Amino acid sequence: MDFAAELSRYVDRVEAGIERLLPPGRQRPERLHTAMRYAMQAGGKRLRPVLVLAAADCFGSKAGDPLAAAVAVECLHTYSLVHDDLPCMDNDDLRRGRPTVHKAFDEATALLAGDALLTHAFALLATGYAGQAALGQKLLIVLTEAAGSRRLIGGQMEDLLAEGKPDTTKEQLEFIHLSKTAAMIEAALIMGGQCGGADEAEVGALARAGRDLGLAFQITDDVLDATADSATLGKTAGKDARAGKATFVGLHGLEASRRLAAEHTAAAAAALNQLPGHAPFLVALAEHLARRGK
Amino acid sequence: MDFAAELSRYVDRVEAGIERLLPPGRQRPERLHTAMRYAMQAGGKRLRPVLVLAAADCFGSKAGDPLAAAVAVECLHTYSLVHDDLPCMDNDDLRRGRPTVHKAFDEATALLAGDALLTHAFALLATGYAGQAALGQKLLIVLTEAAGSRRLIGGQMEDLLAEGKPDTTKEQLEFIHLSKTAAMIEAALIMGGQCGGADEAEVGALARAGRDLGLAFQITDDVLDATADSATLGKTAGKDARAGKATFVGLHGLEASRRLAAEHTAAAAAALNQLPGHAPFLVALAEHLARRGK
Repeated sequence: MDFAAELSRYVDRVEAGIERLLPPGRQRPERLHTAMRYAMQAGGKRLRPVLVLAAADCFGSKAGDPLAAAVAVECLHTYSLVHDDLPCMDNDDLRRGRPTVHKAFDEATALLAGDALLTHAFALLATGYAGQAALGQKLLIVLTEAAGSRRLIGGQMEDLLAEGKPDTTKEQLEFIHLSKTAAMIEAALIMGGQCGGADEAEVGALARAGRDLGLAFQITDDVLDATADSATLGKTAGKDARAGKATFVGLHGLEASRRLAAEHTAAAAAALNQLPGHAPFLVALAEHLARRGK
Repeated sequence: MDFAAELSRYVDRVEAGIERLLPPGRQRPERLHTAMRYAMQAGGKRLRPVLVLAAADCFGSKAGDPLAAAVAVECLHTYSLVHDDLPCMDNDDLRRGRPTVHKAFDEATALLAGDALLTHAFALLATGYAGQAALGQKLLIVLTEAAGSRRLIGGQMEDLLAEGKPDTTKEQLEFIHLSKTAAMIEAALIMGGQCGGADEAEVGALARAGRDLGLAFQITDDVLDATADSATLGKTAGKDARAGKATFVGLHGLEASRRLAAEHTAAAAAALNQLPGHAPFLVALAEHLARRGK
């Protein structure tokens, strides 16, 4: 398998899906739709939608086309970044090397564009699986659970509450990372599996892989934040530590963090190996993410 | 029919549904779940969820229990108020006579509580119709469409853009009101009909009634904003006009606005009269709203 070529094919499918499944920028109100597209076209790794497509490909039968689910997951992830960047949250001016949405437009437009991307994620599940109501409902259950107040949003809330608190525990930090990062990565793999027709045991393996992959991804993020420079990252480096946020590196040290990231990557690969055909692309992707420089 | 008693029974069902179908305030993170409940417990008329329940009751068969849909519609409406009140939007300190969510908590918590209520609305459609995937999907299509970038959020965007623009046209104002107000009222009636097993023609009548009821409701709101005092309204009176926002009263004058509200109320009643049994409660509710003092 040529991993880089395969990854690039998945990313191309995601980009084409985003282009096709977002409302046109010229649609009324233009400012809102332009801001939604601006946010979605920031590039990035497209990790979550690629996981949806690749997980679906692990299975023989096709319960449904995973593309709408993949774009839905990316809309959801993007909304969370747009709102997270707002002045009342992380107050970030740069995202992937370009002005954040509230900098390029204004705060109200960024707020509404985030709301609209969140709503559009669920609209895609409604319209994308119109002929497959049972599948659409399963996808909706997974996405609303991962994105809801107990997981994604709950993690953001606890992240804010932990800011400037030097006594944040390892348990609290793991809750934050499981909620903020792992929940959506887990959901992406499960939703891909559901589109591919995975059975219950396979969905279980995907969920375990997603949890470990999410933790590995977030720990690596903390390691990069502590060691790389802003130009390489495309965002302000060292910001979390300066903001008084607890990080894996701060709580566990750099070496232990690297070891933990490697352990979670290996655990994710082990879970993926239980899938039909041992999911070589997904295993390679997990290892690729652990070695990444940004 | 004792209208007041019937209305109060519907409101009680909605309140009990909200109490039961929102995550408990003590669930982690408590601050987030407490803020969600604070926003939802602001009282108010519960107009939209009552419309869901009452529309469902117009039909003989029950495709599904309308309560989850009713609470979903109220979660969605409430999120839009919480975000609309934020400093970067309308910057309101009071809502229904109490501090708005960002005043009672803080801006970040209000942003996240709004996001969580929006997500929870769709979660309720996923879990509330678990055994009825086809119905759940129909409800999801209606709610995502009404709440999306072309309608609810689109109306809020154009409303912001129209601020301080004295040349806002009657057409633009109608777009704003159809999107900001009528879309969700229309969706509430349609979703109720879908839960009650309405056929296509009946859904069409509900949609027409919702459009007129929504316009009547918004015009009456503008009339009250221009004529009542803050204590009666439970919010700052005359605020729209001072903010340089176009209003029906500003564009059409007070008398023409009152006449337009009455015309739309009569059109809504005519559409409702096409439903089985002529929907006496819904007709009475439309007339009650036209006569309201806040």
